[in-house]
Parts: sequence; C-alpha cells; structure tokens
Amino acid sequence: MHAKLKLLIENPVTQRIIISLIVINAVLLGLETSGAIMAAAGTYIVLLDKAILGVFVVEIVSRIYIYRLNFWKDPWSLFDFAVVSIAIVPSSGAFSVLRALRVLRVLRLLTMVPSMRRVVGALLSAVPGLISIAMVLLIIYYVFAVISTNLFAEQYPQWFGSLGLSLYTLFQIMTLESWSMGIARPVMETFPYAWAFFIPFILVATFTMLNLFIAIIVNAMQSFNEEERKETIDAVNVLDNDLQGELKLLRQEIRELRQFLTNKAL
Amino acid sequence: MHAKLKLLIENPVTQRIIISLIVINAVLLGLETSGAIMAAAGTYIVLLDKAILGVFVVEIVSRIYIYRLNFWKDPWSLFDFAVVSIAIVPSSGAFSVLRALRVLRVLRLLTMVPSMRRVVGALLSAVPGLISIAMVLLIIYYVFAVISTNLFAEQYPQWFGSLGLSLYTLFQIMTLESWSMGIARPVMETFPYAWAFFIPFILVATFTMLNLFIAIIVNAMQSFNEEERKETIDAVNVLDNDLQGELKLLRQEIRELRQFLTNKAL
Amino acid sequence: MHAKLKLLIENPVTQRIIISLIVINAVLLGLETSGAIMAAAGTYIVLLDKAILGVFVVEIVSRIYIYRLNFWKDPWSLFDFAVVSIAIVPSSGAFSVLRALRVLRVLRLLTMVPSMRRVVGALLSAVPGLISIAMVLLIIYYVFAVISTNLFAEQYPQWFGSLGLSLYTLFQIMTLESWSMGIARPVMETFPYAWAFFIPFILVATFTMLNLFIAIIVNAMQSFNEEERKETIDAVNVLDNDLQGELKLLRQEIRELRQFLTNKAL
Amino acid sequence: MHAKLKLLIENPVTQRIIISLIVINAVLLGLETSGAIMAAAGTYIVLLDKAILGVFVVEIVSRIYIYRLNFWKDPWSLFDFAVVSIAIVPSSGAFSVLRALRVLRVLRLLTMVPSMRRVVGALLSAVPGLISIAMVLLIIYYVFAVISTNLFAEQYPQWFGSLGLSLYTLFQIMTLESWSMGIARPVMETFPYAWAFFIPFILVATFTMLNLFIAIIVNAMQSFNEEERKETIDAVNVLDNDLQGELKLLRQEIRELRQFLTNKAL
Repeated sequence: MHAKLKLLIENPVTQRIIISLIVINAVLLGLETSGAIMAAAGTYIVLLDKAILGVFVVEIVSRIYIYRLNFWKDPWSLFDFAVVSIAIVPSSGAFSVLRALRVLRVLRLLTMVPSMRRVVGALLSAVPGLISIAMVLLIIYYVFAVISTNLFAEQYPQWFGSLGLSLYTLFQIMTLESWSMGIARPVMETFPYAWAFFIPFILVATFTMLNLFIAIIVNAMQSFNEEERKETIDAVNVLDNDLQGELKLLRQEIRELRQFLTNKAL
Repeated sequence: MHAKLKLLIENPVTQRIIISLIVINAVLLGLETSGAIMAAAGTYIVLLDKAILGVFVVEIVSRIYIYRLNFWKDPWSLFDFAVVSIAIVPSSGAFSVLRALRVLRVLRLLTMVPSMRRVVGALLSAVPGLISIAMVLLIIYYVFAVISTNLFAEQYPQWFGSLGLSLYTLFQIMTLESWSMGIARPVMETFPYAWAFFIPFILVATFTMLNLFIAIIVNAMQSFNEEERKETIDAVNVLDNDLQGELKLLRQEIRELRQFLTNKAL
Repeated sequence: MHAKLKLLIENPVTQRIIISLIVINAVLLGLETSGAIMAAAGTYIVLLDKAILGVFVVEIVSRIYIYRLNFWKDPWSLFDFAVVSIAIVPSSGAFSVLRALRVLRVLRLLTMVPSMRRVVGALLSAVPGLISIAMVLLIIYYVFAVISTNLFAEQYPQWFGSLGLSLYTLFQIMTLESWSMGIARPVMETFPYAWAFFIPFILVATFTMLNLFIAIIVNAMQSFNEEERKETIDAVNVLDNDLQGELKLLRQEIRELRQFLTNKAL
Repeated sequence: MHAKLKLLIENPVTQRIIISLIVINAVLLGLETSGAIMAAAGTYIVLLDKAILGVFVVEIVSRIYIYRLNFWKDPWSLFDFAVVSIAIVPSSGAFSVLRALRVLRVLRLLTMVPSMRRVVGALLSAVPGLISIAMVLLIIYYVFAVISTNLFAEQYPQWFGSLGLSLYTLFQIMTLESWSMGIARPVMETFPYAWAFFIPFILVATFTMLNLFIAIIVNAMQSFNEEERKETIDAVNVLDNDLQGELKLLRQEIRELRQFLTNKAL
C-alpha cells in the first residue's frame, strides 16, 4: 500500500496532472477577480477551485504519509505544505487577508516544474554570498533612518514621523523614486542643508547596492570559470601522464639495452 | 527567367537600392507626420511613398516566386512579408490603427543591412536562455497581481480594479516609476500595512530581473570564454603531439641502436 | 599593567561584549526616536545609553593607552575615535545637529565584526581605481552646472539660481528623478531648445557613470582571474620541472651506459 | 626660434602652469555665476579671466605655429582649438548662448591631464563597438516615434504633437521618468489600448539598451582576457621549448653513443 502510493505519487504522469491542475487553478483564481465572470459562472468556478484544492490536500497528505520525517526536512515540501495550508485555513474576520493569499498556491509551479525549480534554486543559492554585504547595507540604512527621524520627525511627520516611516521613506529614496522633487526639495525648504543628508545617503546606498549586484555577477562568473580552469588543468595533467608514460617506455628501452650489453659482456 | 530574377534580386546593387529606398521611405514617413509639410507637398510625398511601397511589393513577390517554400521558412522573410502586408491592407474604419503601423516597414532596415541583422540575431539569440527565468518572473508577477486585485480592487479601482489594471500597475511598480508617491503611499492611507505587499514585490521582482540581466552577461561571457579555453587546450594538445612524436623518434633511435648492436654481436 | 590591559582588550570575549553593546545601543537609539516609549521608560533608556557610551569611552581610551601612536595610524581606530567623540561632545545650540549624529556610533559594528570589516574594506579598495573616471565625471558635471546657471538662473531661480542649486538640480537629473516632467519640460516652455542641454547631459553623465560601474566589475573580475591564471601557469611550470627532471635522469642513464661501454672497451 | 618655442611649450613646467590656469579659470567662471561676488569684485575677476584666456590663445597659436599641419590632424588639438575659439567669438545678439559655452574651456583639463586623457580615450574607444547596436536602437526609436505621432498627435499635442516632440517624449519614457503616471495613464484615458504601445516600447528599448551596456562590459573583459590567454599560451610555449631543448640534448647523447659504438666496431 505504502509502496504503491509512492509509485503513484512519483509517477511523471501524476506530476504532470498536478502541474496542469495548478495552471488551471491559476486561471480560475484570475477569473475569480472579475465581478462579471463570478456573477455569470461563480458557483462552477468556486466548485472547481475547491475540487482542485481537494486534490492538492490529498497529494500533500499522501506525501507526508510516504516520506514521513523526510517530508519535513525538504524545504520544497515545506513550501508546498505552507501554501496549501493557507488555502484551507478559514479566512474570516481578522484573517480575511489570508483569502487574498490563497493564490500563493500558484507558486507551487515553481517547485513542481523542474526547470523553474532549478532557476529558483539558483536565485536562492546566490543569497548566502550576499549576506555580509546586505548586512552592511542594512546597518547604514538603519543609522540613516534613526538620524532622519531625529532631524525631520517634527517638521515632516508624514515622511519621518517614526522610525518605521523613516525606514519606508529611505527605502523609497534608495529606489530613487521622487527622492528630490517629492522628499528632499520640500525638506530643504525648512532645512536648507538637508542635501548634506540625502546626497551622501544616495551615494553610499547606491554604491553599496551596486557592489551587491557586482558580487552576484562575480560569483556567477567564478563558479563558471572554476569549471573552465579545471578543464585546462585536466588537459595539462593528461599531457603530463602521456609524456611520463612515453618517458617510462624510453627508460625501459635504455635499461633493456644496458641489460643486453651487460649480458653480452659476460 | 527564374534564374535571371534570382541573380537580379540577390545582386548587391539591388540590395543597396532597396536599403536606400527604405531610408528614403523612413524620411518620407517622418515628413508625413508634419501638417505644414503635408499641406505644402503632400501629394508628391504620398505619391513617392506609394511608389516605394510598390517596389517593395514587387521585390517581396519576386522573392516568393524565387524561393518558393523556403521563403516561408526563413523568419527574416516572414518579417519582411508581414511589415509590407500591413502597409497594403486597406486601413479604414476599425483598422485605422494599421495606418500608424505602416511605418513598421522601416524596420526592414534591420533585416536588410547585414551588420544590423547580426545585432538583431544576437539580441534574439539571448532570448531562449532567458525563458525559464522569465517564466519564474511571470508567475511571481501574476500571483502578486491576483493578490493586489483581491486586496485593493474595491478601494482603488483606478489602479487595481481588474486583473488587467493590476498587471499594468505592477509593471509600473517594477520599473520603479512613482511606485511610492504615486501608488503605495495613497494605498497605505487605507491599508497601513500595504508596504508589506509592495516592498516584498519590489525586492523579489528587481532581484529576479537583476538575475535575468546577469544571465545575459554570463551567457555572453561564456560563449566567448569557451572559445578562448579551446585555444589554450588546443595549444596544450599540439604540445602533447609534438613531444610524443619527438619521444617516439628517440625510442626508434634507441631501438635501432640495439638492432645495430645485436647484428654486430651475431 | 600595560600588557594585562592589552590582553583584556584583545580578548575575543571582550570583543564580543563590545559588539553586543553596540547592537543593544542601536536598539536603544531606535527606541529613543519614539515619543511613546520615551514617555514610558525614557529615564532608563537614557541611563543605559549613557552607561554603554561610558564603556565605549573606556575602551577607546584603553586602546589609545595600549597602542599609543599606532592607534592614530590605523584608519579603523580613527573612525571609532571620531564616532565616539561625536557622541560625547555637548550638543546644544549651534551643535544640535550633532545630537542626531550620535547614532553614528552604531557604525562601529562595521569596524568590529570581521566579516563586515572585510566587506567595507573591499568597498573602499574599489575607490582608488575609480578616482580618475570620477574626476572626469566631476569636471563634466561642473561645466554643465556653470552653463545651466548662466542660461537658466534668471528664469528658474528655484532650480538654477546659483551654482550650488544647479549642482543639486543636475545631481537630481543624473539620478533621472523627475528630470523631464519636473525640470526639463517646464524649462522648455521658456527655452524651447533646452533639450539640447538636458539630453546631452543625461547621455554623457549616464555613459560615464556606466563606465565607472563597469570599471568596478572589470577590476573585481581582474583580481579574481589573475589568481586563476597563476594557478594554470603554476601547473604548467610544475609539469615543466617534472619532465625536465625526468629527461635529465634519462640522460644520466645514457651517460652511465656510455661510461660502462667505455670501461669495458678499455 | 621654432625649436626654442617647441621646447618651451612641451616643457612639463609649462604644461603644469597651463593646467593650473585652467583650474583657476574654472573657479573664476564659477564665481562669475554669483551676483554678489560679481558686484564686489567683478572687474578683477573679469580681468583675470581675460588674462588667462589671453594665455590660452597665445599657447594655441604657438602650438599651431610649432606643429603646423599636424596640429589639425590631432583630435585633442582640434578640441582645444574649438573650446578656446568659442570663448573669443563675440557673444552678443543671436550668439548670446555662446557666452554660456565659454565655460567649455574648463574641459581642456580632460585633454591636458594625462590620466584624464586616458580615461576619455578609453570612453571614446568603447564607442565604435557600440555603433551597430546603437543604430538598431535608433531605428526602433524612430519607428515608435512616427507611430506615436500618427496615433496620439491630435489628442496629446503637448507630448506627441510633432515628430520632434514624440522623440523627446519617448526619450523620457526610455529613461522610465514618469512614463506611466505622467504619460501612459493620461493617454490611456482616451486610448484604452495605449499600453499595447508603451509596454512593448519599454521592453524593447530597455532590452536593447541593456545589451548595449553588456556589449561594453564584454568588450572590456575581452581585451583583458586576451592578454591573459596570451600569457598562458606563452607559458605553454616556454614549456615546449624547454622540453624540446632537453630532448635534443638526449638525442645528441644517443647519437654520440652510437657513434662511439660504431667506431669501436671498426
């Protein structure tokens, strides 16, 4: 029973059916956003949506039964579990935002389609190499947010009224969105030297972000060049082996010659 | 007749005439946008435009006659056929937008001038390597669009009223245009936690786009480094062959010496 | 006494305590921005803040005592000294802005945590290679600022009224923030050819900035490829030595054979 | 006389004096933008400015006298000639804009300081490799400008009223400045499908610009890797020579041995 279920779940056909159901589900969730379509065929769409969700629940439960503890150790499985759980949690009252998150189910495409799983894996594998540079960026960002709150909170409460608001506003400034016309110029009407805060922040933040970005490029190139270097060194080693083999044969030949002469001399 | 026409069409002089006509046509189409110029010399411009279009039609028809089925297999030819067809379709009533598209003819420069054809070819050849990462971006984009429609449609119908509007608005946010002052800050007046939607979206979308961009760089470097690596390995292999040859000659020499001594001994 | 203090200060445990205190201090300085929290627990927070500052002062004074002149030669120490000094300078009247800068203390995390120190070191090491290209950018920027002041100061004093204002406005334009809708289009209402100033400025400035950015990437790749190249050349040299040694042994063998034959002949 | 003048002009001290004068001149031209400073010390500043300009004229005339035709063949000299000429042309009436361009003299720093000259040279040397891709971008840009003029000129004359205005607006859209909130959304009020024009334009234009940018990176890496590859191949060639030399000695030894045995046999 256990083995049969495993065969069934790991069958490529089952996998493909699940992927198709996710795609159909994505379309249904898109259709559900339209009032006109829901008025016309809402009951069928919701029914089909629930049916597909049922299949997903059965699939996840089967996988928990099959893989037991290993299921909980695989981050991809945990992700599948989380996005399906969100969909079956009752979403009323305080949890009404969860209703909107039911569409996260569609992200299972990223864990089910092998080529996308590779891309997501590659994206995530770039993250650890960026942690220390991201921490530097975060510290600088935090320091500037505290300074801006201290300086501008009273006059510009809508932008810098609390640490949270300052963090949001500085994030906006980092993306360069309306940083001057929207934020810095109005602030400079009260604090004429505010440019001495904003321009260094922009220079430091963009320079650090640039290096974050360059770190990703260099890492990508590194792992790829590493491979290439190995190939070159392999070629050199093959050369080494070839020539050493040839030289051993030569030495053998000379040794035999000497043996022959020694024998003759006796 | 068939062979003669082929010689004529493939003649570099014909090619250069066609290219000149496209350039002249580009200028004419530019002049046609000016009311003053059209009032002064409109009839001549339109006449010349139609004459050039006539030449293009004759050229395309000749190429269809010459290459037969092969014409329809070459994507460059299909492109030429499409942009010339748009220009001769009657553009009245519902099709008035086609009038504006007549200028697409000018894009034939990209298919006719060899150096530009190479550039366009290179640009297009970068696309297949980007498909899986672009698909990941699209899925994330779609999921966020459905969520934003569910959450914000009622309060902000002008931005998130339907799935289409949400997709457009999130595209704008991905380009970072007025994302905060124009969209996120107004939304945060009703939904104070909306930043928890917009900031993750910006981080995920820009990080994925960045990796799309890095994928193009790394691919470009890869194909170029590949070539270089081959050259190095070729040099090592040539060296290997040279030295092996040299060592074989040496062995031959020793063998001959032994032969000589054996003969002498007899 | 001197040696004992040195052991104490350089002890990893002391280092870790200082790092923890900086983090706690960062949180305290964040809490101090909130009026509600300060009303509830302000005295305790300020007291704890002062106590931590006291520890920092003691630590810096100890390090000055231990390292003497070397303290003043190490840029990291100077940075620590500067950010702690700012915090103890009385910040009233004209110096009230220094109060806001007390939070710079948190940046000591960048000098104390080794992994961040490396990142900051790497960021700063990229700067010298960028100086000449940055100088070119600065000269172009200055020239455009003087031109814009001469041209637009009278009509648009809020943007180009003085050299300082022009420098600020052109910095904004370099970041592409509202350059057209906010600045260029209004200016073009009075000076219809102003685009002939703004568009070349944007093209030249972004092209130069792009090359600044590319210089960082190429430098990063260069130092990394340099290492790789050395590894390959080392492998070739090891091979060279190995084979030369092998061939020398072979020659020795032949020489011995000849010696043997000569001896026999005598 | 001719030789003496050449020695004088090419003397590093003279060069350094000229560079200092350019820097002083840059400062003076900056001061001239300030009404207050001009009111206080205007006559002295203008006098000094004219004196320095006089030195520049004498220097350029000397160089024309010294290098004759070669002066006109060197693009750096032509640049110097142009920016000094602009400064001495009478700038009244229709030419009042030339007054503002007098500051272009400061750009002579880029041609006089060797390190900056190298940077500018490197920037310019990147241009030829970008011409064909820039041409592709220009053609696409032109085609979209004609289409937008045809479609939107009547309803939105301030943005798309003529080909020139459309080119300017599309340049703004390419920089992503206010493309949606400022241009596309208002246009979509009349033409609901205008997104089908703007979004493809942004995708095509940014993708092509990205590839322009990548072309610069790859070119920079290419010329640098080329060098590296040569070094590796040189190492392989040294190895080849070393080993072949060693093998020749070995062969010589064997030949001598054979000679010795042949002699003994006789």
